[in-house]
Amino acid sequence: MKKNLLFLLLLTAALLPVDAAAQSALIQRVNPTNWWVGMKRPNVQVLVYGPGAGTLAYTITYPGVKLVKTSTVENPNYAFLDLTIAPTAKPGKVQIVGKKGGQTLTQAWELKARDNGPKGQGVTQADFIYLAMPDRFANGDPSNDKFADMLDPNHDRANPFFRHGGDLAGAAQRINYLKDLGITAVWFTPVVENNQPLTDENNTMRASYHGYGFTDHYTVDRRLGGNAAYKAYVQQAHAAGLKVVQDAVYNHVGNTHWFIKDLPMKSWLNQWPTYTNTSYRQQPITDPHASQIDRKVTLDGWFVPFLPDLNQRNPYVANFLIQHAIWSVETFGVDAWRIDTYMYNDQPFMNRCNAALLTEYPRIHIFGESSVTNVVDQAYYVKNNINFAFKSNQPGGLDFVLEGAMVDGLKHDGSAQRMYEALAQDAVYQDPTKFVTFLDNHDHNRYLSEIGDDLGKYKMGLTWLLTTRGIPSMYYGTEILMKNFKDPTDAEVRKDFPGGWPGDKEDKFTPAGRTARENEAFDFVRTLATYRRTHPALHSGRLMQYLPQDGIYVYFRYDATGTVMVASNTTDKAVALPTARYSERTTGFTKARNVLTGENVASIATLQLPAKTAVVLELQK
Amino acid sequence: MKKNLLFLLLLTAALLPVDAAAQSALIQRVNPTNWWVGMKRPNVQVLVYGPGAGTLAYTITYPGVKLVKTSTVENPNYAFLDLTIAPTAKPGKVQIVGKKGGQTLTQAWELKARDNGPKGQGVTQADFIYLAMPDRFANGDPSNDKFADMLDPNHDRANPFFRHGGDLAGAAQRINYLKDLGITAVWFTPVVENNQPLTDENNTMRASYHGYGFTDHYTVDRRLGGNAAYKAYVQQAHAAGLKVVQDAVYNHVGNTHWFIKDLPMKSWLNQWPTYTNTSYRQQPITDPHASQIDRKVTLDGWFVPFLPDLNQRNPYVANFLIQHAIWSVETFGVDAWRIDTYMYNDQPFMNRCNAALLTEYPRIHIFGESSVTNVVDQAYYVKNNINFAFKSNQPGGLDFVLEGAMVDGLKHDGSAQRMYEALAQDAVYQDPTKFVTFLDNHDHNRYLSEIGDDLGKYKMGLTWLLTTRGIPSMYYGTEILMKNFKDPTDAEVRKDFPGGWPGDKEDKFTPAGRTARENEAFDFVRTLATYRRTHPALHSGRLMQYLPQDGIYVYFRYDATGTVMVASNTTDKAVALPTARYSERTTGFTKARNVLTGENVASIATLQLPAKTAVVLELQK
Repeated sequence: MKKNLLFLLLLTAALLPVDAAAQSALIQRVNPTNWWVGMKRPNVQVLVYGPGAGTLAYTITYPGVKLVKTSTVENPNYAFLDLTIAPTAKPGKVQIVGKKGGQTLTQAWELKARDNGPKGQGVTQADFIYLAMPDRFANGDPSNDKFADMLDPNHDRANPFFRHGGDLAGAAQRINYLKDLGITAVWFTPVVENNQPLTDENNTMRASYHGYGFTDHYTVDRRLGGNAAYKAYVQQAHAAGLKVVQDAVYNHVGNTHWFIKDLPMKSWLNQWPTYTNTSYRQQPITDPHASQIDRKVTLDGWFVPFLPDLNQRNPYVANFLIQHAIWSVETFGVDAWRIDTYMYNDQPFMNRCNAALLTEYPRIHIFGESSVTNVVDQAYYVKNNINFAFKSNQPGGLDFVLEGAMVDGLKHDGSAQRMYEALAQDAVYQDPTKFVTFLDNHDHNRYLSEIGDDLGKYKMGLTWLLTTRGIPSMYYGTEILMKNFKDPTDAEVRKDFPGGWPGDKEDKFTPAGRTARENEAFDFVRTLATYRRTHPALHSGRLMQYLPQDGIYVYFRYDATGTVMVASNTTDKAVALPTARYSERTTGFTKARNVLTGENVASIATLQLPAKTAVVLELQK
Repeated sequence: MKKNLLFLLLLTAALLPVDAAAQSALIQRVNPTNWWVGMKRPNVQVLVYGPGAGTLAYTITYPGVKLVKTSTVENPNYAFLDLTIAPTAKPGKVQIVGKKGGQTLTQAWELKARDNGPKGQGVTQADFIYLAMPDRFANGDPSNDKFADMLDPNHDRANPFFRHGGDLAGAAQRINYLKDLGITAVWFTPVVENNQPLTDENNTMRASYHGYGFTDHYTVDRRLGGNAAYKAYVQQAHAAGLKVVQDAVYNHVGNTHWFIKDLPMKSWLNQWPTYTNTSYRQQPITDPHASQIDRKVTLDGWFVPFLPDLNQRNPYVANFLIQHAIWSVETFGVDAWRIDTYMYNDQPFMNRCNAALLTEYPRIHIFGESSVTNVVDQAYYVKNNINFAFKSNQPGGLDFVLEGAMVDGLKHDGSAQRMYEALAQDAVYQDPTKFVTFLDNHDHNRYLSEIGDDLGKYKMGLTWLLTTRGIPSMYYGTEILMKNFKDPTDAEVRKDFPGGWPGDKEDKFTPAGRTARENEAFDFVRTLATYRRTHPALHSGRLMQYLPQDGIYVYFRYDATGTVMVASNTTDKAVALPTARYSERTTGFTKARNVLTGENVASIATLQLPAKTAVVLELQK
């Protein structure tokens, strides 16, 4: 671990004494790689990189584009050009001209017209998100499975650390599968290039297939199909009525990111005298009694040794990240923005970043990952009702507290008590319906394993997920009963979707390829998701929940268009439930339709609840 | 249960058709029994009770006293006289004159001068509160052990349900014992008369020795010594430098309370068509998704069948309770106000009641019992930083969340992790230092039993209690290692203090009467409490806590006068702890004094922490 860090420190130390002015310069990279006319935000800070790029004198002559300021930093290979783009500017190639002595460098940089395609549509409670890991979902293009010129040139589906070859082309072929299942939005783990080596300098395996170690922000990984495949995927998804969520990472990058190999300045990263990992602990951020050092370790400690921690208080870093976010939405047309390790980011930076995205795309939904264990800490990272000194502007988040409550309840005593208690604390949030809810994800034990491979519990939890407040999301394969614990590695919960690869013996994308039990699960999810898609009470209806009593948990979603009653019998005996207690919500209704079975319930005065079953009823007059 | 309730309903139903005007009237009670000149609050509503008291026409002729309005209610035996008392009014006997036809009744009612004795002094973090149950602490006057004319005429120390004879005279004899122990304030479970029968109509035992079923607000129970003994106790305590906390009950009264036997009106109580117990559940009050019926059951459901639930939304009830609170502080001179079952009271009423007390006694401390399981619900009942629709004005509360965290931590893995996490959520409170902290009380398993009779854990928890933020309180007998679980009855944790009764074989009020282990415990508490009493860093110093690591939990209390470091080694091995991590608080200090052992620590660079021990260090330059 320490070796790795020292390597970085040596690099930054080496920057200072270089006399690059004596050398001839070269421009290798310009980030963002392009921009647009007609953005609400008139400013863009262009990073110019190449040997001696910081020693050039820059000029730009383009109608409506003004080079306000050129900044140089510790490393002479960087220049930062602050541009303003007037509303009158037209699309075209801006020539960035750099001069030094007799040398003149000219770099074209495109100002594009904005397209009219859908983008930043947001996700709401009307949606049902499917989270997939592209390398492990479906392989549509075996020609991009590996590249000899990448740091990890391997491909082997038998090895959990290696790339397996899944890609965006494969995912595109399964858009109809997801539509049929009732999915309305797809969220991929990050698609940005992760050109990381398979092992670190100690020969420890450092798989990068999950995508959280970016090495070039402006390039989608070739093994997934590159920028073109991603753009094509989003367009196909949109055409099919699916939205796309992009997974963003601000906190860190891969240690082979191009700018890490030649750091612009020491303060680009959160540097420590000796390697310091984050504590992964939430408390020092919100604890009024915390020490500064505990706070700093949580925030500025590195996530792992091979993911250098970006210093977002550095304005160049902040601009770089914010512009990349806008560039991604504008380029690919994604609809929502999931943010990795949200709680480890500098929160004032996050607010500026969120505000920038929301300014350009007012309907976009933003939901960060803050893996916390209580509602107070969870509230801190979203718009909340607690008078913290820092006020987050994040609209949504991933609801880790509700996940823990639902799954732990099912796991430990099969009850809904913890879920009820978690939701009962929703007063701390300004809008709890904007949380994205889930039962597991790529970092957790798979839901089915966590609840003891119990199909009854599986259905109950999924019923809760799809009917309580929030924007439900489901991890790929849950619908076909994929299971596993993270032991021995995370790859156990990131297995290939059977049928996603040419020649797979089983194809669980089709009913014929699934076992009866898998079809039972699949059909269950599809029935409920399909119902959900067309019933506004589950999108924008209010939630009313009743105190669980004797193992029965009853709640309602209701609005002017309808009332859906969810009655969960978590006991192991059938129960005849009198409904008089629920008259606040049942008055005016006499009968119901059982959404899951299609049966008509002639009277709702007393409900027959089978053991260990959540019954979903659409109430009728 | 139902019988009992029906009885009450019949009573209230019987009120309506009575034509009391035809009968001659009588005044049996006037509440409050007196008032004072010179109060900040100029109004007092006098309840006049007696056969036909509501059929009289009242007049008052007294300089500065104005009878603004006489109100009659459903029951003709009640009249409510709204008086204003001008700042110019002098002490004296106000004659309340009631006339009906040719009958004239005159009832003297005293307006007293306020005395100058201390009252409403408040309790702060500078205090250490001792909670005792007077019937079970010490018997100073065997002549008041039982009274043949009371509904429970029994006395038998061998029976857990019977009165045991402890009284205020006995407690007064132990004031020096408490002073020696380092106590600065005494809190008795309620002293107000509980003239309740020993059994209910089903012959079920309904002990009243604990005091939470008032039968006459204006009378201290004779078996404790009555009003005079209580006043004398407070005066003796004040003379010795101890403060007194009164335990108030607003939510309910005993079912043999005089006004329950002849209810003023049906709405005096929270009435239900059939008996309805509170759910004892906190969630419906704060849950934005709760139903009205769940909320009503929590609030207006009865605590138990024999404690009728007062309807504090009834303005006559509210006035009665608020005036009794003021009367109690003014009469007896108590310093702080503990409120029973705070969360089951009508919260707007509680705010008015708190405001009334704080208006008269700005320094008084108020802390209610809200037995909740998370900080969000706990915050709701005190001044908090959450934008709830209802805003509590209660300054303090009993910190049930911290109790659970400290004791569960010690019990389950011996660690401080839960305590740390509870304190880390203090941002939800406006002032967490105003909570009264505790390790057990008369309703919980005794602390020592809960932690497995482990003297090491015992010391660690008490160290935390006496050095972390908040106003510490300790349940009687903890200092002499009294233990027990509540099984089979609560009386198991309310045993007589050995030596409190004449002729007791053991006298644990004295060192000679205690075993070596008990003296070790007693001396431990005394050492720490005595240190605490004179060290402002533990009264008003800030708290800084560090993330527990490897079983070591370190925090500091600090201000300009000093820094106290508490380092808890919760592991079963001695640890040499380098302190560099704590430099924010240790810079400027080089050595220390071990508060518990008296030893000098020559260097604080590395601390030697014995296994399972909390070390308390006063840092020195």
